[in-house]
Amino acid sequence: MLRAVARSLAASVCCVVFSGAVWAQESLPSWNDGAAKQSIVEFIAKVTKEGGPDYVRPGERIATFDNDGTLWCEQPMYVQLAFVLDRVKALSPKHPEWGSEQPFKSVLDRDVRGLAAQGEKAVMQLVAATHTGMSADDFERIAGDWIANARHPKFNRRYTDLVYQPMLELLAYLRANGFKIFIVSGGGIDFMRPWTEKVYGIPPEQVVGSTGKLEYEVRKGKPVLMRRPAIVLVDDGPGKPVGIQTHIGRRPIAAFGNSDGDLQMLQYTAAGGGARLMLILHHDDAEREYAYDRKSHIGKLDKAWDEALAKKWVVVSMKNDWRKIFPFE
Amino acid sequence: MLRAVARSLAASVCCVVFSGAVWAQESLPSWNDGAAKQSIVEFIAKVTKEGGPDYVRPGERIATFDNDGTLWCEQPMYVQLAFVLDRVKALSPKHPEWGSEQPFKSVLDRDVRGLAAQGEKAVMQLVAATHTGMSADDFERIAGDWIANARHPKFNRRYTDLVYQPMLELLAYLRANGFKIFIVSGGGIDFMRPWTEKVYGIPPEQVVGSTGKLEYEVRKGKPVLMRRPAIVLVDDGPGKPVGIQTHIGRRPIAAFGNSDGDLQMLQYTAAGGGARLMLILHHDDAEREYAYDRKSHIGKLDKAWDEALAKKWVVVSMKNDWRKIFPFE
Repeated sequence: MLRAVARSLAASVCCVVFSGAVWAQESLPSWNDGAAKQSIVEFIAKVTKEGGPDYVRPGERIATFDNDGTLWCEQPMYVQLAFVLDRVKALSPKHPEWGSEQPFKSVLDRDVRGLAAQGEKAVMQLVAATHTGMSADDFERIAGDWIANARHPKFNRRYTDLVYQPMLELLAYLRANGFKIFIVSGGGIDFMRPWTEKVYGIPPEQVVGSTGKLEYEVRKGKPVLMRRPAIVLVDDGPGKPVGIQTHIGRRPIAAFGNSDGDLQMLQYTAAGGGARLMLILHHDDAEREYAYDRKSHIGKLDKAWDEALAKKWVVVSMKNDWRKIFPFE
Repeated sequence: MLRAVARSLAASVCCVVFSGAVWAQESLPSWNDGAAKQSIVEFIAKVTKEGGPDYVRPGERIATFDNDGTLWCEQPMYVQLAFVLDRVKALSPKHPEWGSEQPFKSVLDRDVRGLAAQGEKAVMQLVAATHTGMSADDFERIAGDWIANARHPKFNRRYTDLVYQPMLELLAYLRANGFKIFIVSGGGIDFMRPWTEKVYGIPPEQVVGSTGKLEYEVRKGKPVLMRRPAIVLVDDGPGKPVGIQTHIGRRPIAAFGNSDGDLQMLQYTAAGGGARLMLILHHDDAEREYAYDRKSHIGKLDKAWDEALAKKWVVVSMKNDWRKIFPFE
């Protein structure tokens, strides 16, 4: 009994000392002590300090996270591209013509170079063939089933196991400090929504992503939303601030990314008034994950890196700042 | 001291008795006892009863509300149209050509019939002239300033005073029972966001509405989102389920509307599994507000009313079900 009272008192004192900010040492155990962790902790302390010059009320504590390469592994290819290729194979028995038609033939022949040579248009054709023509409910089931079973070629783990433990801790730490967290990803909004709540604790309504056209129809008396082959939002690069304004309607005070596709989101976040946190994850750990930056086709980090250095944004070294990469380690 | 303990005990007992559902008698004081109120209370009790057959976990308790005519007064013209007309007048000194150009001339001459005769295209021209060509931040300030000062022609009150007290109570009652509430309106998303949090307690990220095209630009080193004259989503009629899927990504379990523009949202809500609440507000109170339905140009209630009667959705009579209309009464 006395011990419980003592604990309770100690907890109260801590609350007063740290003026509401949840203490970071225990919240970010997979982060090594260093400049990156310190920047995060200092930012949180500033915006949560009531009466302080940088105080931000909880409703306006908006943080946005890129997904591919920021929250989970994006190598050796974007997870959604692996999904597209698997779906082409799965659907091919119903499409005998794909055996001789490009870009489907390249996929079925496992001719990666041949596919790459066909460029972006080919990818859009594959996306249209695998992501449209069904209802939103059907697509949710298809994507959810795939992610529950598909495995990463290098780690032989489910893709949702290949999320970054330090980032899960950061999400929880931000949440405990009154932040509302949104994913703002170049990936398809409906590809992420079936699993983000379970994996990251981020519900569907806080997921922003590339968005296809939907049409409302009543089929046999039942209302359905049909997926159509047209793009409403490419939520990448300059599309990220557009997605943020459209879905959130407030400027984030913190943004997290890893590639040039996140540059405009970081710029837009930085341009608001008051304390801001802009963070870029640098993949420099070939041993535990992958090492890539300026010359990578996937997750290219070049202009955003230069701007991060020039503007003193936080650059996280996966190799040096992270004690642990994946939860299963 | 003893009294405090007694109160605390009494509160605990109440919680147990009502199995988590916040009791309605005190929560909905402006609602007369009757079938409408009873339907609401029974629905809430069902979906919040842990272990019950209709239990819905809090994260999935999504409710969507139309705005014009459901949460606030939409007569004698949509509030946003009043904003458009005022903006044309305010901007006219910079546009001398509007004195002879339609549809601007009709607005400046206060020729309502002449304007009406020019149809939807004219309205779109007025919207483009008053809603685009500026940054998202500038529009937010313009809309916010206007709503803080403009007054309703009949009631001589600010438009934000003309919200329905029984609906404010319903929003609070739903919130207290773990619901997340979204506005899903035909009105412009950025016209509503500057004031919905203050007036309804609904933050910008929970507002869905008609959406215009945005473009990211860096102007003099400063990132801005420019508003362009193109429509991305008409969030009305069949556009409402599209807006719901795009922004929320979950089907609501409760939806509230007042006109044919809400029919598809109500159908889509009704088509999900488990307990559902579909509610239509019927404006039948010419004395305290307005009376209109099947033949109205604004807020026409015809097909949705037929379907409500056929499907036994809840139809709320403003005259009979509401003790009070506006908070200031």
